[in-house]
Amino acid sequence: MNLNRIQKITKILNDEGLSALALNPGPSFTYFSDLSFHLMERPVVLILTANHEIGIVVPEFEILKLQGLPSSIQTFPYPDNPSVWGDVFSNACKVMHLDHQTIGIEPTQMRFLELNYLQVAAPNAKFIAANKLLEKVREEKDEDEVNLILKSIEIAQNALEATLQWLKPGMTERQISNELVIQLLRAGSDPEIAFSPIVASGPYSANPHALPTDRVVEAGDPLLFDWGARYQGYCSDLTRTFV
Amino acid sequence: MNLNRIQKITKILNDEGLSALALNPGPSFTYFSDLSFHLMERPVVLILTANHEIGIVVPEFEILKLQGLPSSIQTFPYPDNPSVWGDVFSNACKVMHLDHQTIGIEPTQMRFLELNYLQVAAPNAKFIAANKLLEKVREEKDEDEVNLILKSIEIAQNALEATLQWLKPGMTERQISNELVIQLLRAGSDPEIAFSPIVASGPYSANPHALPTDRVVEAGDPLLFDWGARYQGYCSDLTRTFV
Repeated sequence: MNLNRIQKITKILNDEGLSALALNPGPSFTYFSDLSFHLMERPVVLILTANHEIGIVVPEFEILKLQGLPSSIQTFPYPDNPSVWGDVFSNACKVMHLDHQTIGIEPTQMRFLELNYLQVAAPNAKFIAANKLLEKVREEKDEDEVNLILKSIEIAQNALEATLQWLKPGMTERQISNELVIQLLRAGSDPEIAFSPIVASGPYSANPHALPTDRVVEAGDPLLFDWGARYQGYCSDLTRTFV
Repeated sequence: MNLNRIQKITKILNDEGLSALALNPGPSFTYFSDLSFHLMERPVVLILTANHEIGIVVPEFEILKLQGLPSSIQTFPYPDNPSVWGDVFSNACKVMHLDHQTIGIEPTQMRFLELNYLQVAAPNAKFIAANKLLEKVREEKDEDEVNLILKSIEIAQNALEATLQWLKPGMTERQISNELVIQLLRAGSDPEIAFSPIVASGPYSANPHALPTDRVVEAGDPLLFDWGARYQGYCSDLTRTFV
């Protein structure tokens, strides 16, 4: 748990009149908890309240990841049988006094899966988009974060340079995209790169979110790259066009 | 649009008394539409109704992707200014008669972002988890799908074999994981692999969802791999343990 960051968001929750924040796995979840979970078919929710309480709902079989956490953090593990997950969420919401409260969530991250468990467990709570509050904390990067982002950009640039030296007319967009991903990993990106690269040539280069196709790239074609690395969770996102 | 698959799910919607299905980008979205979108800060929603209507809400700048669709498909493009997105969703829900209806969504995929636009646009609609209905259609794989899955498994196996030939004691979990991803791509995986591989050694190999660390793997360590490829959207998911 990054208690310094949690303290900042707790202050903002109090300033804005929110009772709690409920986060499912993703960058904000990791930002506050220093924990990582796959976004899977089992719900994981981190709860941060305006009263400085911290709770986490997790599958029992992931409990090893919580070893060494401060004892003040309330854990609500659930067994593998989905029929009792609702009870565990009910208990978590009761212990943390979430019903009848206003709870912030992340609209681009929170899924119906987790939201529905929370809504059933706290039927009179109001769930609202809290992305602006999260941005207030997360947009101000500390020195360590700036260095991670710079490193992520450097990895992306090195990967593109290596790909450009390798590529020749006659290759397909898909081949070029795969090589770019390989070079991102060789250059030191996290295994889960920032996003699937866009390599778009000829007429496809006019489509802002084209996916790589089997189109063969010939000499003289416009060739657009939109790609990024991830380094310790921090992403870069660059675009370059060549002819 | 895959009208054959849409016809199957439409029959199930009618059998189960659902009025419509609302899908955001992801495997089911692509399964029915043959369209791919990044899951981004802009909502994209595919609507399939029990009355055989098809609608799609998309950003205007992605409209090129919809070229060549049958004219019977209703498109609801929105401009870049988020203040009018709600109006576009309202119009889509009105045109497709979604208010006061029961609408199925995918709990592990649908986010608060899209759900909230739908709920505000159709305030008296009921949104329910439709994963079981989707499974009914998607679990029965046709021959093409089976071949794609077999290919995805083959890619994963080839990638592991190449990684095993390369690895030596003294390498870290993270290095091994990165090499495995590189080999997945060399073996022909889609750039977005199935999931970030788990490479867990020594005591970490007891943690079912461990993330690769900088732990150095020594001779005699248990070494667990949990990895998969993606081929034309179809994932493999394998686990092997070595000593």
